[in-house]
Amino acid sequence: MSISDEQKQEIAELRAETQATRRAVVPELEEILYEPIPVLDHGFVRVIDYMGDDSAVVQAARVSYGKGTKAVREDRGLIRYLLRHRHTTPFEMCEIKYHVKLPVFVARQWIRHRTANVNEYSARYSILDREFYIPSAENLAAQSLSNRQGRGDVLQGAEAEEALSILKQDAASCYDHYEHLLNEGPDGEPRDPARQGLARELARMNLPLNIYTQWYWKADLHNLLHFLSLRADPHAQYEIRVYAEAMLETVRRWVPLTYEAFTDYVEGSLHLSKGALAVVRKLLAGEPVEQGSSGLSPREWRELMDSLGREG
Amino acid sequence: MSISDEQKQEIAELRAETQATRRAVVPELEEILYEPIPVLDHGFVRVIDYMGDDSAVVQAARVSYGKGTKAVREDRGLIRYLLRHRHTTPFEMCEIKYHVKLPVFVARQWIRHRTANVNEYSARYSILDREFYIPSAENLAAQSLSNRQGRGDVLQGAEAEEALSILKQDAASCYDHYEHLLNEGPDGEPRDPARQGLARELARMNLPLNIYTQWYWKADLHNLLHFLSLRADPHAQYEIRVYAEAMLETVRRWVPLTYEAFTDYVEGSLHLSKGALAVVRKLLAGEPVEQGSSGLSPREWRELMDSLGREG
Amino acid sequence: MSISDEQKQEIAELRAETQATRRAVVPELEEILYEPIPVLDHGFVRVIDYMGDDSAVVQAARVSYGKGTKAVREDRGLIRYLLRHRHTTPFEMCEIKYHVKLPVFVARQWIRHRTANVNEYSARYSILDREFYIPSAENLAAQSLSNRQGRGDVLQGAEAEEALSILKQDAASCYDHYEHLLNEGPDGEPRDPARQGLARELARMNLPLNIYTQWYWKADLHNLLHFLSLRADPHAQYEIRVYAEAMLETVRRWVPLTYEAFTDYVEGSLHLSKGALAVVRKLLAGEPVEQGSSGLSPREWRELMDSLGREG
Amino acid sequence: MSISDEQKQEIAELRAETQATRRAVVPELEEILYEPIPVLDHGFVRVIDYMGDDSAVVQAARVSYGKGTKAVREDRGLIRYLLRHRHTTPFEMCEIKYHVKLPVFVARQWIRHRTANVNEYSARYSILDREFYIPSAENLAAQSLSNRQGRGDVLQGAEAEEALSILKQDAASCYDHYEHLLNEGPDGEPRDPARQGLARELARMNLPLNIYTQWYWKADLHNLLHFLSLRADPHAQYEIRVYAEAMLETVRRWVPLTYEAFTDYVEGSLHLSKGALAVVRKLLAGEPVEQGSSGLSPREWRELMDSLGREG
Repeated sequence: MSISDEQKQEIAELRAETQATRRAVVPELEEILYEPIPVLDHGFVRVIDYMGDDSAVVQAARVSYGKGTKAVREDRGLIRYLLRHRHTTPFEMCEIKYHVKLPVFVARQWIRHRTANVNEYSARYSILDREFYIPSAENLAAQSLSNRQGRGDVLQGAEAEEALSILKQDAASCYDHYEHLLNEGPDGEPRDPARQGLARELARMNLPLNIYTQWYWKADLHNLLHFLSLRADPHAQYEIRVYAEAMLETVRRWVPLTYEAFTDYVEGSLHLSKGALAVVRKLLAGEPVEQGSSGLSPREWRELMDSLGREG
Repeated sequence: MSISDEQKQEIAELRAETQATRRAVVPELEEILYEPIPVLDHGFVRVIDYMGDDSAVVQAARVSYGKGTKAVREDRGLIRYLLRHRHTTPFEMCEIKYHVKLPVFVARQWIRHRTANVNEYSARYSILDREFYIPSAENLAAQSLSNRQGRGDVLQGAEAEEALSILKQDAASCYDHYEHLLNEGPDGEPRDPARQGLARELARMNLPLNIYTQWYWKADLHNLLHFLSLRADPHAQYEIRVYAEAMLETVRRWVPLTYEAFTDYVEGSLHLSKGALAVVRKLLAGEPVEQGSSGLSPREWRELMDSLGREG
Repeated sequence: MSISDEQKQEIAELRAETQATRRAVVPELEEILYEPIPVLDHGFVRVIDYMGDDSAVVQAARVSYGKGTKAVREDRGLIRYLLRHRHTTPFEMCEIKYHVKLPVFVARQWIRHRTANVNEYSARYSILDREFYIPSAENLAAQSLSNRQGRGDVLQGAEAEEALSILKQDAASCYDHYEHLLNEGPDGEPRDPARQGLARELARMNLPLNIYTQWYWKADLHNLLHFLSLRADPHAQYEIRVYAEAMLETVRRWVPLTYEAFTDYVEGSLHLSKGALAVVRKLLAGEPVEQGSSGLSPREWRELMDSLGREG
Repeated sequence: MSISDEQKQEIAELRAETQATRRAVVPELEEILYEPIPVLDHGFVRVIDYMGDDSAVVQAARVSYGKGTKAVREDRGLIRYLLRHRHTTPFEMCEIKYHVKLPVFVARQWIRHRTANVNEYSARYSILDREFYIPSAENLAAQSLSNRQGRGDVLQGAEAEEALSILKQDAASCYDHYEHLLNEGPDGEPRDPARQGLARELARMNLPLNIYTQWYWKADLHNLLHFLSLRADPHAQYEIRVYAEAMLETVRRWVPLTYEAFTDYVEGSLHLSKGALAVVRKLLAGEPVEQGSSGLSPREWRELMDSLGREG
């Protein structure tokens, strides 16, 4: 994570100041407010602001005049009921805002989630920093042979070294050329007075997809959980999954009851199709059942047996 | 406005408690936090929570590490620039949540704004209160003769009296029957043990559209301003406009710089079509121009001359 | 269903005319295009337009230049894969538009689904017809004693008769007063020249929630299926469920492969929480397990046992 | 534009086939259906499907049973009225779907418009083609000196040549390395059997932002017009503006009345702030007015005078 001393100072100043508010406050989240949580080699996630807490979910579900809380135990039961029965709107009543630094190819996956508010650092207007994502050795994976959008073994030896070297050199060389094309010194003056410099909005096209960008990203709790259920999933690409995991941890601090319910009903859960449910019922009844006659495809059958902890 | 003593007590308790926060705080909005602002005869708007302030708009536009503010004057200039040039995303970084009590026919207009989060009091699950909107004498308007969706003169004398009497009697009678159909006493026991009582989800269909409902409604600042630009407009129906006006006042407290810019660039502004612009240019050049040859319809011409403060 | 002869004529004219198109065409849906499908006592659903078919889902998933179809069998496999793995965006590439006539209290539930386009008949601008939803005898249900938002037994005898009579009389009386307040004859002239007539936007507030309204409603296939999964569900109120069921039938005509996959993976499926999955695994392993030690609440346990076809 | 013979063949087959439909058909749009319209050096826009026409806007605004059209002249008047008064929902009742090939840095701007449906070609799953956007000589612009996100003069001579050469060489070199990292031959077999090949989802990060991607993009007419009003604007970056212009031309073919109204009320229009309106009124009244006392900033004053065709 690369944060300048000036930025550290700005963050420290924000953290040092507190004010009184009548709003719901979550001390466990305030503890890490504004602090960058490192992700990947240069990225981070910072919680910038939040609105509401577990009680706000209850308060909205009840359309209440006061806090909406009677007792923690009741709140917990209601939150679990709402999540289990897909009554999602009360979770939209909490909101959180992050500042995220992330590689462009990760940003391109992330932005497909449309129910969020985004302000991205503009490379039309500003100059991007010389920061690129270079995978660590254990994340330099080969193409999976069985899954067209997955990873296989980690690259070894000379192949790994060469891959890292290519990624580093191309990034460095493209960035050198980017700076050359811009022809703009740190003082804003031309490096070479004989050249005009290419427009920022054009020069950026020479940068590779592993360059870091940053944005402010804000979402309500329901849409955040939906994002996390897809992106903290083992099928998600590692490089976005680590962001989702860091954010899940902020959710645990922010709304512990909702986090617990999410863990039970979404994250560790299993969806049974009509056919899979029929198989489970037969198994429980002690009836014989096999893939061929189950109506499930071989792949679905294998996934089901894995999930049930059985050999297929 | 009808708020029970118990509800007043709940609100007072919420207001009495303050906690320290590292987040942005807006004292002028905190002053009225949770307080119901009366609207119509029994309705209200209450600010329940908010996220961000004017500086948060600037902070997001700059994707900054700190507060985003250098000086109030600079913030003001940037906010005006953003609003003038339709750079709307930084305004999405502020969020506000209201508790609103409103007649059902107003709720039906309001809900068409889809970019908001809503939790409405459920008449499937609960029993609605005996509260109906009855227009005050000066709002009991006749149908406009010139505008199919507008109002004309205020009804007078016997006609006004009769109209009010009909509205009141039908509301009272429908509500009496609603209670009778429900057959449920205040203790939850049947009023008449010989009857089962109609399901709540069915009995409610006997209620008229002026009964009051309530909801939690949450939106970001950009979408809120869009809502207000349409609903605080003179063409909006009076009964929703008064809600928009009460909310505009909360916006003034919350984000005064944004409010000022909104007032200048949206509320009091005028949109000139290509044809209208051509007319204005000709007028300024001292060239003769009249409706017939202007390309504008008679109605557009009239609207333009009105807006320019000229006789057509 | 009440459709005037003039409306029938308009529909017949639309249906009589065909034109050549290069777009995807679905003959089974064209067969019923524009035809009202009756729902409840006066309501209907009509398919007005559609875009795409099952192949369009495949075409979008592959971002292909041609049809996207190689063989029906492959399309089927891909569509099932996409739905099973929540790759929902290709289903957004099909779109359908309905004209729906429905009671206002149903419209109020329906409109909470925000990812759709809606144009509703305006009672500010126009006069509503004298049509109210009156439940049939078998749908006149008592309040459920166990579920606060459910129905119990059907009302019988005198109680049923009285309930129907109240609903009919209040509707008739409110509508009579609505017409009186409007004071507008069929020719647009005042019924009583001595009165001005109340503005339409005000007079409508005297109408009960079972009056019929109508709208054009358009959604993409993904969001339509989400709507149907919630509203064709047994927990949905009967009066909206019958609309969802009529629409499901149009989906079967329109995109049969998607419909089949929806039926298998969504409609007849079961979602197991982490705790429920652990219970199923233990049961399959022949280990003893009971509610008390399962971590499931009594209610969750009962629901699980029901779904698995076991006695609790 | 680079379209393979096989792709041309697929397109020709789609175009050759017509079927009868009862839906609204727009012959002028059918004429170009599926045909790629070239944009930039290798990009294109193709209309893949559409729903509705100008009459569908009218039909939805009237919630009608039939076509909604009485006479073209009436339709025109209503469409102009709706657009002028921001009654936007009837325009949401038309839908269009495009297949677009575009550089990644353009796709990153485009995707910020969230009210659309998108399926992008996946570089996690597939291998991207060797196609990069290289600006033509007249679009190789220097940074604007007055506007931080604009362009100035076109680069000349050696500087231009060098810039093009850098862009071409870096693209070629990065793509060579991408292929090397993938280690996958055209037959799917490893090029070098001694290496495993880097996972596709990782190798892509070595590609520069001017590589072409493609997607299916679908939007309703209202949101499309909003997109076009921002992206066909002179302030938009040239490389996205040319896409918007190509799409505007398809709108003209598709819904000519709406296109005409858009041209009058949006594209060629001018928005006057409250302060600017006051200036115009004074000018028309022959009163003296100058920037200093106008309340407008120097920049706003200049923009206003330009728009009014006056010297400031």
